Amino acid sequence: MARISFLGDLLGTLYDRSRRPGNSQDRRPVEDLCDALLESTSEVAGLRLANGILSKYRHLSPEAKLGFFRYLADTLDLDAAAVVRLAEAYGADHSPANFAALMAAAEPRRRMLLRRLNQAPGATAELVRMRVDLLGLLKDHPDFATIDQDFVHMLRGWFNHGFLTMRQIDWDTSAKLLEKIVAYEAVHQIHGWDDLRRRLYPTDRRCFAFFHPSMPSEPLIFVEVALTREIPGSIQALLAEDRATLQADEARVAVFYSISNCQGGLRGVSFGNFLIKQVVNELSHDLPRLETFVTLSPMPGLTRWLRTQQGDPRAKRVLDGTATEAEAESMAARYLLEAKRPNGSPADPVARFHLGNGAIIHDVHANADTSASGLEQSCGLMVNYLYDSAQTERNHEAFSSEGKVAASRSVKARSRAERGVAFTTPPAPAEAGK
Amino acid sequence: MARISFLGDLLGTLYDRSRRPGNSQDRRPVEDLCDALLESTSEVAGLRLANGILSKYRHLSPEAKLGFFRYLADTLDLDAAAVVRLAEAYGADHSPANFAALMAAAEPRRRMLLRRLNQAPGATAELVRMRVDLLGLLKDHPDFATIDQDFVHMLRGWFNHGFLTMRQIDWDTSAKLLEKIVAYEAVHQIHGWDDLRRRLYPTDRRCFAFFHPSMPSEPLIFVEVALTREIPGSIQALLAEDRATLQADEARVAVFYSISNCQGGLRGVSFGNFLIKQVVNELSHDLPRLETFVTLSPMPGLTRWLRTQQGDPRAKRVLDGTATEAEAESMAARYLLEAKRPNGSPADPVARFHLGNGAIIHDVHANADTSASGLEQSCGLMVNYLYDSAQTERNHEAFSSEGKVAASRSVKARSRAERGVAFTTPPAPAEAGK
Amino acid sequence: MARISFLGDLLGTLYDRSRRPGNSQDRRPVEDLCDALLESTSEVAGLRLANGILSKYRHLSPEAKLGFFRYLADTLDLDAAAVVRLAEAYGADHSPANFAALMAAAEPRRRMLLRRLNQAPGATAELVRMRVDLLGLLKDHPDFATIDQDFVHMLRGWFNHGFLTMRQIDWDTSAKLLEKIVAYEAVHQIHGWDDLRRRLYPTDRRCFAFFHPSMPSEPLIFVEVALTREIPGSIQALLAEDRATLQADEARVAVFYSISNCQGGLRGVSFGNFLIKQVVNELSHDLPRLETFVTLSPMPGLTRWLRTQQGDPRAKRVLDGTATEAEAESMAARYLLEAKRPNGSPADPVARFHLGNGAIIHDVHANADTSASGLEQSCGLMVNYLYDSAQTERNHEAFSSEGKVAASRSVKARSRAERGVAFTTPPAPAEAGK
Amino acid sequence: MARISFLGDLLGTLYDRSRRPGNSQDRRPVEDLCDALLESTSEVAGLRLANGILSKYRHLSPEAKLGFFRYLADTLDLDAAAVVRLAEAYGADHSPANFAALMAAAEPRRRMLLRRLNQAPGATAELVRMRVDLLGLLKDHPDFATIDQDFVHMLRGWFNHGFLTMRQIDWDTSAKLLEKIVAYEAVHQIHGWDDLRRRLYPTDRRCFAFFHPSMPSEPLIFVEVALTREIPGSIQALLAEDRATLQADEARVAVFYSISNCQGGLRGVSFGNFLIKQVVNELSHDLPRLETFVTLSPMPGLTRWLRTQQGDPRAKRVLDGTATEAEAESMAARYLLEAKRPNGSPADPVARFHLGNGAIIHDVHANADTSASGLEQSCGLMVNYLYDSAQTERNHEAFSSEGKVAASRSVKARSRAERGVAFTTPPAPAEAGK
Repeated sequence: MARISFLGDLLGTLYDRSRRPGNSQDRRPVEDLCDALLESTSEVAGLRLANGILSKYRHLSPEAKLGFFRYLADTLDLDAAAVVRLAEAYGADHSPANFAALMAAAEPRRRMLLRRLNQAPGATAELVRMRVDLLGLLKDHPDFATIDQDFVHMLRGWFNHGFLTMRQIDWDTSAKLLEKIVAYEAVHQIHGWDDLRRRLYPTDRRCFAFFHPSMPSEPLIFVEVALTREIPGSIQALLAEDRATLQADEARVAVFYSISNCQGGLRGVSFGNFLIKQVVNELSHDLPRLETFVTLSPMPGLTRWLRTQQGDPRAKRVLDGTATEAEAESMAARYLLEAKRPNGSPADPVARFHLGNGAIIHDVHANADTSASGLEQSCGLMVNYLYDSAQTERNHEAFSSEGKVAASRSVKARSRAERGVAFTTPPAPAEAGK
Repeated sequence: MARISFLGDLLGTLYDRSRRPGNSQDRRPVEDLCDALLESTSEVAGLRLANGILSKYRHLSPEAKLGFFRYLADTLDLDAAAVVRLAEAYGADHSPANFAALMAAAEPRRRMLLRRLNQAPGATAELVRMRVDLLGLLKDHPDFATIDQDFVHMLRGWFNHGFLTMRQIDWDTSAKLLEKIVAYEAVHQIHGWDDLRRRLYPTDRRCFAFFHPSMPSEPLIFVEVALTREIPGSIQALLAEDRATLQADEARVAVFYSISNCQGGLRGVSFGNFLIKQVVNELSHDLPRLETFVTLSPMPGLTRWLRTQQGDPRAKRVLDGTATEAEAESMAARYLLEAKRPNGSPADPVARFHLGNGAIIHDVHANADTSASGLEQSCGLMVNYLYDSAQTERNHEAFSSEGKVAASRSVKARSRAERGVAFTTPPAPAEAGK
Repeated sequence: MARISFLGDLLGTLYDRSRRPGNSQDRRPVEDLCDALLESTSEVAGLRLANGILSKYRHLSPEAKLGFFRYLADTLDLDAAAVVRLAEAYGADHSPANFAALMAAAEPRRRMLLRRLNQAPGATAELVRMRVDLLGLLKDHPDFATIDQDFVHMLRGWFNHGFLTMRQIDWDTSAKLLEKIVAYEAVHQIHGWDDLRRRLYPTDRRCFAFFHPSMPSEPLIFVEVALTREIPGSIQALLAEDRATLQADEARVAVFYSISNCQGGLRGVSFGNFLIKQVVNELSHDLPRLETFVTLSPMPGLTRWLRTQQGDPRAKRVLDGTATEAEAESMAARYLLEAKRPNGSPADPVARFHLGNGAIIHDVHANADTSASGLEQSCGLMVNYLYDSAQTERNHEAFSSEGKVAASRSVKARSRAERGVAFTTPPAPAEAGK
Repeated sequence: MARISFLGDLLGTLYDRSRRPGNSQDRRPVEDLCDALLESTSEVAGLRLANGILSKYRHLSPEAKLGFFRYLADTLDLDAAAVVRLAEAYGADHSPANFAALMAAAEPRRRMLLRRLNQAPGATAELVRMRVDLLGLLKDHPDFATIDQDFVHMLRGWFNHGFLTMRQIDWDTSAKLLEKIVAYEAVHQIHGWDDLRRRLYPTDRRCFAFFHPSMPSEPLIFVEVALTREIPGSIQALLAEDRATLQADEARVAVFYSISNCQGGLRGVSFGNFLIKQVVNELSHDLPRLETFVTLSPMPGLTRWLRTQQGDPRAKRVLDGTATEAEAESMAARYLLEAKRPNGSPADPVARFHLGNGAIIHDVHANADTSASGLEQSCGLMVNYLYDSAQTERNHEAFSSEGKVAASRSVKARSRAERGVAFTTPPAPAEAGK
C-alpha cells in the first residue's frame, strides 16, 4: 500500500487552527461545548467539537479545570431515580426496549462524553493526560473518585491488551523514542545518552516496551533486562561502566532490573504482569539456553519498616550501617515474609506486584544498591524475585486466594534464623561475609 | 526498532495447540469456561481461558451456539433487583463506594465477559464473527436483542474512530488483501484480477479502506473512486474495459462509485461517513484541481416502489422499459424526494445514508446501470449525490432535525414536472433524449 | 528516518519532460549527445545528457538503433595504436602517469559512455533493455560482439552479488510484482492468478527472487519450491489443483521445480547458482527438518538427441511413445551421461547448469511431464538434480576441471544397463514398471 | 514480501567463523589466497575465499599490509609486453576474439581481484577501509599510486550515483546512525546529544545524507541546513543554544552550514555536488517559499595566505586582530578572487568545491566564526556561496573551461576597494563598522 494516512494526519490539519488557544473559533465555555457534543448527531461535527473541547481544556486555568471536573461529577452524573424506575421496569419485563432504556440511564453521561471525546485523533493521549490532572485533585476532592472510576473503566477498554504491541527498544530505535526512555526510567536513573547506550547497545542487554496503536511514539511501560551467567546480587556491578560484555548465547540468566510505568494517567490499568511474561516468552525463543528469569528489585519500604522495629537492636544496626551482611539479609527476609498491610497483603509494593504475578522470593542481598536512594529506602539491600513458568500460575493462585507468600528455602531459613538467634549471639565476623 | 512482535505472535504460539478443536486441553463446557474466566484473578490464566473459549466456540454446533447465546441472555444478564437497591443507595448517598457498587451491578455480566474475551490476541475479529452468528439468530430469538445491544456497545468502543487507519489500496497492495477486496465488493461485482487491475492500477482510479490495528489484513470498509472530467451518468461507461485513461491532474471530478462494508458483524457500527469525508480530504490535498466530489449510486428500492404506484401509467412504462429517459428520470426524482418510510425518512437506504452525511441529490440518470441487477432493482436508473464540504454540515443538520431532503434545482424540477403533467400528455419523443 | 527519497524521484521529476519523445528539448542526434556526455565536466549537466540519451534511444527506429550501435562499435572503440604506444611507455617506465595514460587509452570510450549513462536514475534498467536490442542484432552483425563484451563487463560490476537482495515472494507480495512473476515464469507456465495462488499461498510452497537496489520492482531471477515428503517424479502431480497440502514442518524434501531468469538483457551475468545456494541456506534455517534439496528439471535437448540416435530402436520407441518406462529412463540416463557438445561438456543446457553448480544427477522419471511442451522437448521425461552441501564444492571442482559428471549409482546403472542390453533383449513388460 | 534477507545475513552466518582471526581455517598467506581467488571457477568457493582474504587482511600487521600492497602493485600489475602484442593484433584485425584477449590483458589483475573480493557480503565497506590504509602509504610509496588509480576506478563504479539513496536525518533517526553523524561532523563539531538535538529537532533545521545500499548504516556524506529569514553572517548566532526557532514556512533562506564527507576511503569519489543539488530540489518542493540557497562556509586557507602577504600592512592587521571589519572583509574578498594555485585555480579548497559546482561568491563576513579553529584558520572570517539554479550550469561551465570565478558585485567591489586604497589611507574608524 503506497500511502498510509492516519485519521489524525488529516483531521489534524483540519483542526490545527482550533488547537491554538487564542485562535479557537468557538468561544463557548468548555462545559457548553460538552453539552453540544453530547447532543450532536453529526459524527463530523462531533469530531470538531471533541477537538475543540480537548484543545480548550489544555489551556484552562487550574480553577477552570476544577470547575470542569465538578461539572463531570455533578451535571454529568447518572440520575439514580431514573435508574431505579427503569430497573424496576426491566425487572418486570425483560424486553429489549426496557433493557436499552435502563442501559442508557445506568451509565453516567460523562462516560458517553469520554467516549465521544476519544473519537478525535490524538484524543486518547489527551485523555490520559486529563486523568493526571484528575488524580492530582482526588485528595482534596474525594468525591471525584466517581469520575476516576469512569476514567479507569474507559481506559481499560481502550488499553485492552489485545490492542497492545510489544517492541524491542535498542540502539536502532529513534532518538525521539529513546529520549522518552531516559525521561521515564523510574527505578535506576539513566544518566544521559552514554549511560543509555550501555543499557541498550551491548549484546547482553535488552529493553522491551508496550505501545498502543494510537500513541505510537509513547511507551506505556518498559523493562530493562541484563543477560548474565549467574543471578546477580548488586545493581552497581550489573551496570558498571567497565564490566565485561557477555555473548548473548553464553547467558543463562535474564535479569529484569528495572520496570518503569510511563503514563501516570494510566494508574490502575496494569501492564507489568503481561510485559514480563511476554518478554520471558520472547527471550526463551531467541535464546534457548536461558534457564533462569529473575529480577533484581528494590525493597522501597524496608527502611520505613526497620524504623518501626524499635525493640530489635539488629534493626537499628541495619539502619546505622553496622550490621553484618547476614544480619541485614535476615532482616530483609523477615520484612518480605512478615511485614503486612492491614488487609494482610505484603507491606512492600514491589513484593505485592511480583508475588501477585506468581514469582517467588528467591534471594536477598546486602550492599546490593549503594546509591543514595538505595541506601535511603532499603539500606542498600535488594531482592531477586524468580519467575518460573511452571510455577507462576500456582503461586499466583495461592497468593491471591490464601495470601500465601512463595519464597525459596534459603530466604525462609534466613528469616527464621534471624528470629531464633536474634537476641542471643550475633554472627561472628568470619561468618558474616557471603 | 529492530524487532516488533505482536502480543498475538507469542501467545498465538502458546495457545496454538488449544485452537485445534480435538486438541483442547480443557474439556469443560464453554459456559463453565466463561464462568471461570469471569472469576479469574490471573491475567495470564484469563488469557488462556479466553483463548480456549473462543477456540471452543468456533467449533460448536448450531444448537450449542444457541445454548451459548441463551446463557449470555439469561445467566449473564444483570440483576434488576440489585440495580434497584444499589441505585436507591446511591441516590441516598453519592459516595464513591455506592457508585462503584451500582456501576458493577448495572452492567450485565456478559459485557465483562466480552471485555475479557477481547484480551486474547485475535479476539476482536473472532467476536465480530460471533456477532454474525448472533445476528442470524435475532429473528427467531427476538430477546437476544439485549445481547446484541451489548455487542454493539462493546464494538463501538473497540472500533472507535480514533483507532482506525485509512490506507490506499492499489496495485502495490498485497495479493492477500486484494483478494479480500474482490470478495467484499458489494455494489458492482469485480470479475477477477483483470477487472480488479482496471479499478486500481490506472492513474485515474483510487481505492481507500479503513483498518483496525488488531485486524491489519481485514478491511472494514472501502470505497472505489474514479477520477473524471465530468460528472458521469453511466456505470458501464465508467468501468468500460476500453475507456481512455485520464491523467490524474486533468481530473476535475472524483466519483465515489462503490462503497462496501466488509464486516457483517459490525452492522450498526458506522464508518462510511468518515471514510467519505477523509477521502475527500485526501484527494483534495493530493489533487488540488479536483472541484467536485460526487457519487454514482444505485437506488435499490426504486423498482419495488414503482410497483406500488399502480395508478400511474408512467410507473408501469418505466417498469416495462418503454418509458422515455425523461419520464424515467422524473419518476426516479419523485421516488427520491417523496417515497418515505413510516417514520418519515426516505424509503431508499442509499439515499438515507448520503443525505444523512450531508450530501445533496444532484442528478438522476436513466440507462445508467444496464447490468442485470441494475435493471432489476432500479430499472437501470442511477443517482449522483454531491458532497460539497461547505454545505454538508448544514444539510446534515436540516436532514436529521427536520427531515429536510436537499436536492438540486434540476432534480426538484423534474420531480415536479412529472407530477404536474403526469396524467395529461406524455413528453413527445423528441424531448425524451437527454 | 522520516523521509527517504531516491535520487530517481527527484531527478525523475526534473527530467520527466525530456522523457516524452516529442518533448525533448535537445534535438541533436543521439550520437552527438553521447559525444557531449563524454566531454562534459559537469555532473549535473552530464546527468541531464544521460537522461536525454536514454530517452531518445528508447524512441529510435530499428535503423537508428543499428546506427547507434555502429557508432559504439566503431567511433567509440579504442585506438589500438595509442594502446601500443602507451603500453610500450609503461613497459619502459612504470610511472603512475604512464599507467594512468595507458589505462585511459586501453578502455574503449563506449565503456566510459555506459558508465556515465548509468549515473542517471533508472538508467540501469534502461541499459539492460538496450542490451536486449544489442543481442538481437548480434547474429547479423557479429562484430557487435565487441560491444557486447563491454556491456557484460559493465553489467557484471553493477550486478555484483554483494549488491543483490533475496526476498521471499508470497501472497503478501504486491500485485505489481506478482504479475511480473506470472509474466516471467519460463519453465512451467502460470495460468493466471488462481494458479499463481496455488504456487505461493499454501504452507508447502515457497518462492524466492533476487533484486537489485536500483530496480526494486523488477525480479532478476526467481525459483519456485515445493516442500514434500518424498522426492517427486511428476510435475503434474506436484502442481495438481486438488493435491493435499503438507504442513511445512512435516516436509523432508525441498524441490526446486522452476528457475526463471527474468532479464534477457542480463544473459551471461549468472545468478542461479547463488540463488539456489542461498535458498538452501534459508530453508535449512527455517525448516531444520528438511533433509534433501533436489530439483525436478526438464531435459530440453532429449528429443533432439534421440532423433540423432537413428540406429537405436529404443530411441525410436521413446520418440513414438511405445517404450517402457524403464527403457525411456535408460535412454534419458544415457543422454545425460554421454551426450556431449564438441567441447566435451554435457549436451543438455540444464544439466550443464546444475552440474556446474556441483549438483549430481540423482534420478530420471518417465511420464513426469505430460504437458505438450514436456512431451515435445523430452518425451515426458524429467530429472532430479540433487544438491548435497557436503559435496557441491567437490563435484563442481571435478566437473569444471576434469569434466566429470556426478550421478547416483542408480542413474549410472540404468545408463549402463541400457547400453549393455540394448540390442539383445528388451526388458520383459513385468520389469518395466517402476 | 514477508521476509527480506540480505545475502550478507546468510553468508555472514556461514562465514562468521572465518572472520575471527585465530579461527581462520585457511592458514595460507593472504597473497596465496588471492591467487586462489583469481583462479577459482566456483562462485561459492570464490565467495568463501573473498571472505577469508578480507578477514585475514583486517588482522594483518602494518608490515604485512605493506607486503600485500606490494603484491598488488607488482605481482598483480598488467603485462605491458602482452598488451603491446595484443593491441597490435587487434589493430591488425578487429575481431571479437582479439578484442577479448586485449581487454583481458589490458586490465591489471588487481582489478579483477577487487571485483571478486567485492562479491562478498559487506566487502564494499571493507574495501573502502582498505583504501584508507593505502592512502596512508602513498606518501612513502609513491608507486602505489597505480594501485590507488585502480581502487578509484572500481569505487566509482560501485558508488555510481544511480545506486545512492538520499535520506533525511532527523530526530526519528536511529541512535546508531546519529552517533555516526556526531562522529563524522567535520566542520563545526557536534558537542554531544544535546547539541545534535539542536541541529536536527527544531522545525527550522534539516540534515540529509547519501547512503549506498550495501552500507545501509554508514552515511557517505551529509549536509546540515538551517532555515532562516535572512542570509546569516555568523555561525555562532546560527547555532546559538538560545536562538528563537522559526516556523519552517516562514523561512526564505536555506543555509548549508556544514558538509561532511564521512568515508576517507572514498576520497576522489565525489558526492557533494549532487547532494547539494538534490537537497535544493527536496527543500524547494517541501517549502515552496524558500527563495535563496546559500552556504555559510569557512575559508581554510585564509590565514596561511595572509601570512604570505608580508608587504601588506592590512594582512598583518587582520592577522593580529586589529583590522576593521571592512578591512578584514576586503582582504578575504581579495583572497577568494585572487589567490591562486600554480595551475590557476583558486587557492581555497572550499572555494574550488563550490565554484566548481556553479555557485557564486555572494558575501564575506568578519567575526563570523569566533571559535578557536575559526580564528586560527581564517581569522574569524566566513563566506556565503550562493546556489542559484538558473545560473549554476553557466557558472560551472565558465569556471571549468576558463577558470572564471563568479562573485557578487559587492564582493568584487570590496576586493577592488581594498586594492586601490591599501597603501594610502586606512578607513576611518567610523567607516569600519558594517
